Amino acid sequence: MTDLASVFELPLRVYYEDTDAGGVVYHANYLKFMERCRCEWLQDLGFDVARMQQQDGVMFVVRQAEIDFDEPARLFDQLVVTARALHVGKVKLVVEQKIYNHDKLLCKATIKLATLDCASFKLTAMPTALQGALAR
Amino acid sequence: MTDLASVFELPLRVYYEDTDAGGVVYHANYLKFMERCRCEWLQDLGFDVARMQQQDGVMFVVRQAEIDFDEPARLFDQLVVTARALHVGKVKLVVEQKIYNHDKLLCKATIKLATLDCASFKLTAMPTALQGALAR
Amino acid sequence: MTDLASVFELPLRVYYEDTDAGGVVYHANYLKFMERCRCEWLQDLGFDVARMQQQDGVMFVVRQAEIDFDEPARLFDQLVVTARALHVGKVKLVVEQKIYNHDKLLCKATIKLATLDCASFKLTAMPTALQGALAR
Amino acid sequence: MTDLASVFELPLRVYYEDTDAGGVVYHANYLKFMERCRCEWLQDLGFDVARMQQQDGVMFVVRQAEIDFDEPARLFDQLVVTARALHVGKVKLVVEQKIYNHDKLLCKATIKLATLDCASFKLTAMPTALQGALAR
Repeated sequence: MTDLASVFELPLRVYYEDTDAGGVVYHANYLKFMERCRCEWLQDLGFDVARMQQQDGVMFVVRQAEIDFDEPARLFDQLVVTARALHVGKVKLVVEQKIYNHDKLLCKATIKLATLDCASFKLTAMPTALQGALAR
Repeated sequence: MTDLASVFELPLRVYYEDTDAGGVVYHANYLKFMERCRCEWLQDLGFDVARMQQQDGVMFVVRQAEIDFDEPARLFDQLVVTARALHVGKVKLVVEQKIYNHDKLLCKATIKLATLDCASFKLTAMPTALQGALAR
Repeated sequence: MTDLASVFELPLRVYYEDTDAGGVVYHANYLKFMERCRCEWLQDLGFDVARMQQQDGVMFVVRQAEIDFDEPARLFDQLVVTARALHVGKVKLVVEQKIYNHDKLLCKATIKLATLDCASFKLTAMPTALQGALAR
Repeated sequence: MTDLASVFELPLRVYYEDTDAGGVVYHANYLKFMERCRCEWLQDLGFDVARMQQQDGVMFVVRQAEIDFDEPARLFDQLVVTARALHVGKVKLVVEQKIYNHDKLLCKATIKLATLDCASFKLTAMPTALQGALAR
């Protein structure tokens, strides 16, 4: 069985745009941080999301998300977002994602994605090479 | 036992800002729509989130979210977002939220919130009257 | 000469997503409020931006913006955004937009837009009927 | 006379969250990119915007913005945002900002800022050392 243990990490900074009047990062924006991480992860594996969309007509969409917001992130914090494949199928990808402020875990999520045909919005298989790369 | 069945509804429109290059609403923005609905729901029950924050020093934060993204919403769609209390505690509130495009269910979520003291970010009881109003 | 005096008004509410850690609405979000107003204005004149994009392959893009941020808007404020055509050309539209909190003017902008062909991103004439409606 | 010529540069990537259904970056988001650049610029000069807000009770707000949107940025483009002081006063800062995709200038703006007291929202002098650093 394939071991899906390799973890990708993206550092990012919190700006004013990410925060709200509560003084901390607005909860929905953690999902944005996670998506940035997934895009850079695919890029790191050799797959550019823009090229996938334009050339292959394929894009990932989020089908389900479960997120625990444990600790707040604040203005100008330097965070690390991680991504790790939990399951890789032909059209499905399940990713575990975490957001850290140094050693402190702020947020943890399981994100279920699917690959769609950009024009029809119907399920379509992800490129085989990507499937292999994600499962490695 | 209290019946927590009453459903609050907020109509809203999808604008360019809500969409992404996939041509549909960006997934994280459904959480924004749900938060708008919760704010108007509290307002409808007589509780203004800005006044709660300034006068009582209390605010709701999202602690956990489980969301199913079933169907996409598109530019200029007229949606309806709903909120219904599943559980009302002293510091905890669990809300079921749905987003519809006419009869079609696009998105469904369970949002777990807690009331925090705005200054210390520690758990604090929500106003008793609000607790009663939510549970009605 | 056409009198371009008619003013369109859109009421809207400030939510957490619109604010930042400074406690007030994040400056870039006023541009979002103005765009919502322009979309509803076009709709009020009989032109749906989504249908224009899909059926006519035409969309408005902002080419230039000059904005004065005079007073802050705060969480849960009920605002009014206005739009008024200053100039209507074949491919160009200049709009004066203001944002009010009751009588207080918070923000004022001149927004220059152009109509583009959605596929080529080249300038293309706006529908003649829209040109007439805007200039009325 | 002080020469305000030094230019700060921040590279950044375009993600799905930044784009809209027109297929390109949503216009208001260029203002976010510019604000990210200003924050990193201050940081580079030794001033942390979060610490300034918490310790000195001072923050920058945008008072006026003039922006030309010349060319669109697209999903996953790697951009460079620049900032250069045009004028540095006791409470005012005027910054010229540009956004490039490699050699191509996409967007150019003049941003006028002021320093406010975080509590009173009244004008207050920026730290003298910051004034000196910006003017260098």
